[in-house]
Amino acid sequence: MTVHDLITELREEATTKIVLLVADGLGGLALEPGGKTELESARTPNLDACARDGVCGLSLPVLPGITPGSGPGHLALFGYDPLRERIGRGVLEALGINFDLGPDDVAARGNFCTVDAAGKITDRRAGRPSTEQCLAMCRRLQGIRIPDVELFVEPVREHRFVVVFRAKGLGDRVNDTDPQNVGVAPLAAVGQDAASQVTASAVNRFAQEAAKLLRDQPATNAVTLRGLARFPAIRSLPDIYGLRSAAIAVYPMYRGLARLVGMDIAETGSTLGEQIDTLEREWASHDFFFLHYKYTDSTGEDGNFAAKVETIERLDAMIPRVRALGPSVLVVTGDHSTPSKLKGHSWHPVPTVLVAKTARVDRVTEFGEEACLRGGLGQFEAKHLMTLAMAHAGRLGKYGA
Amino acid sequence: MTVHDLITELREEATTKIVLLVADGLGGLALEPGGKTELESARTPNLDACARDGVCGLSLPVLPGITPGSGPGHLALFGYDPLRERIGRGVLEALGINFDLGPDDVAARGNFCTVDAAGKITDRRAGRPSTEQCLAMCRRLQGIRIPDVELFVEPVREHRFVVVFRAKGLGDRVNDTDPQNVGVAPLAAVGQDAASQVTASAVNRFAQEAAKLLRDQPATNAVTLRGLARFPAIRSLPDIYGLRSAAIAVYPMYRGLARLVGMDIAETGSTLGEQIDTLEREWASHDFFFLHYKYTDSTGEDGNFAAKVETIERLDAMIPRVRALGPSVLVVTGDHSTPSKLKGHSWHPVPTVLVAKTARVDRVTEFGEEACLRGGLGQFEAKHLMTLAMAHAGRLGKYGA
Repeated sequence: MTVHDLITELREEATTKIVLLVADGLGGLALEPGGKTELESARTPNLDACARDGVCGLSLPVLPGITPGSGPGHLALFGYDPLRERIGRGVLEALGINFDLGPDDVAARGNFCTVDAAGKITDRRAGRPSTEQCLAMCRRLQGIRIPDVELFVEPVREHRFVVVFRAKGLGDRVNDTDPQNVGVAPLAAVGQDAASQVTASAVNRFAQEAAKLLRDQPATNAVTLRGLARFPAIRSLPDIYGLRSAAIAVYPMYRGLARLVGMDIAETGSTLGEQIDTLEREWASHDFFFLHYKYTDSTGEDGNFAAKVETIERLDAMIPRVRALGPSVLVVTGDHSTPSKLKGHSWHPVPTVLVAKTARVDRVTEFGEEACLRGGLGQFEAKHLMTLAMAHAGRLGKYGA
Repeated sequence: MTVHDLITELREEATTKIVLLVADGLGGLALEPGGKTELESARTPNLDACARDGVCGLSLPVLPGITPGSGPGHLALFGYDPLRERIGRGVLEALGINFDLGPDDVAARGNFCTVDAAGKITDRRAGRPSTEQCLAMCRRLQGIRIPDVELFVEPVREHRFVVVFRAKGLGDRVNDTDPQNVGVAPLAAVGQDAASQVTASAVNRFAQEAAKLLRDQPATNAVTLRGLARFPAIRSLPDIYGLRSAAIAVYPMYRGLARLVGMDIAETGSTLGEQIDTLEREWASHDFFFLHYKYTDSTGEDGNFAAKVETIERLDAMIPRVRALGPSVLVVTGDHSTPSKLKGHSWHPVPTVLVAKTARVDRVTEFGEEACLRGGLGQFEAKHLMTLAMAHAGRLGKYGA
């Protein structure tokens, strides 16, 4: 039996509320040995109060040493096994431009490229066209028709666009057509099974039609597709946990991920204060709230230690408004670490605090990487966090007699 | 290869003795944040000495957030995967009344109910008859004969009884016949596979015959059956570990669980002192001793913090007698937590200490939830404890060269 089946079997009705506050890329690194991380450097009286009142630990997003992207990082926090449920590049690219991806869609990342008279690639990025040029060329490609398959072409920027193939039963075991090299022609798409062969045919048809429509262009005269993917067919979060679930996220990718696991997507303003306004507004109508805060990640990606410290302090200032709502369970964590020292995502375990009346409160009195090492949650795989939240919310009965 | 196969392959002959002392529901919670748990409040000089002399940690009975019943909690301590081997309600009910359940038995929990002239249930508990009435009605049902199936009917109390169907190859994938509602007739039993269809036929025949034998009764005039289950077909503990194993338990359910995994069940008096007498008596004839202490759980279930503290102190007082026997490995743990604050089982990790000459002794000097967080065993899944005990007892060789 799967853990999801078990949870569905054990879950009990309750009126309790759970808030999952994800500070994207929360974990960090000290710039020097013996120094403090961004979180440890920040003045966080309210997160420290959470640590005092709750139980702390460190979350392993996937496995020790594995650095997750946003997709696996969030799937794990939503209670899915990120090694089992994979989210392809095309899906994330489509979500990132706010494309309303559905279960029958196979999405791909597209590149404009330049081919010579023999059809061989001379520039894999078509000389990095302007985003205006990208828009104009995408409008042309939107005219392509493929029998029995609905097609969507949406610009991203420069040489990048998104293609979505929509039809019942399309497979996504299809190779990239980008050969990752110049001097060779784009590859033909080949499907690894019958359902994917249908997709591969549509991909090849699309590439041929695109080449016809673009042949007057000096640079953007062909296309390659990569990362063909369908969102995995998984049980929805509300179905597994019996929670009326709302996502309060600003960035399209996180809204898209939340929608694909079945959450309601709350309309919200883009500041953290406006997100908390939304939380207050949705409080009565939902049981579970996924609140996504982006800037801990983006400042880390920028390698800006001081800016990351400041975004953490801004987050801290909003914690009292969340706690004032009286959630039965408040979890503050991240989907992965983004140390500004590394200017990118990392595998380092993520500081996590869970506040609930049913928590076995530990002796941790500040919220930081080193302090969380001594926390009662220990180091745990992120996929268990939803089970812990459900248990602490009094929403899970006993397994076996 | 399974872990059990690995252990069987690696195990080595030895004369060492292992004692697994299970204080049922040992883990607890402080009543107030910053306070002490029951175990931390108790004066436990002898358990603290174990912590000083051994290695400590916290056991996760099933998975983070999952609250186990006694069945899964004990199976995990006996080295089985509690998610893989499930023990049904009927099995535990039968064990709980000391029924000598065997591998060919399908056990069910029975309820007397009241049906109207149309056969529809008007009271699912037959007006809660007296236990005397239950005994009298069970005696009637003991007269039922089913072709090719041996039948046992045993009273529990009030409206509850146990039915056991015994025959080679009976399946247990059979629905409850209790519709969980009044105004409808008891459900027919349906088997999900050929072996379970045989059981379902026997269940239906039993219910029909019971209705005939009970039709003169005003209230207890029909029966429903629930939780049909067979004990899982698993390798016995002595077979896996090569340990002559004795259970020293007072309550029938734990004696039954131990018997079903192949332990010898020692005759014992009901006080902890008498259990230790039994341990001394059985010392020479066995290698592994499962010593079960119930009262840490029952006082927790009662919500009686002070009483739980006192039962822990009584347990502590007996530890010197156990250590005086010179076990190569002494483990003190619980099958789950039962915080008196929650008046029931919980998911919180369970304090565990392992004393052995081969232990890597940590800096933990007292036996309690917070102190065990800093122990050398870390937080571990309970199913690994038997392997750890075997290793520390010098009973496991090297894996690979």
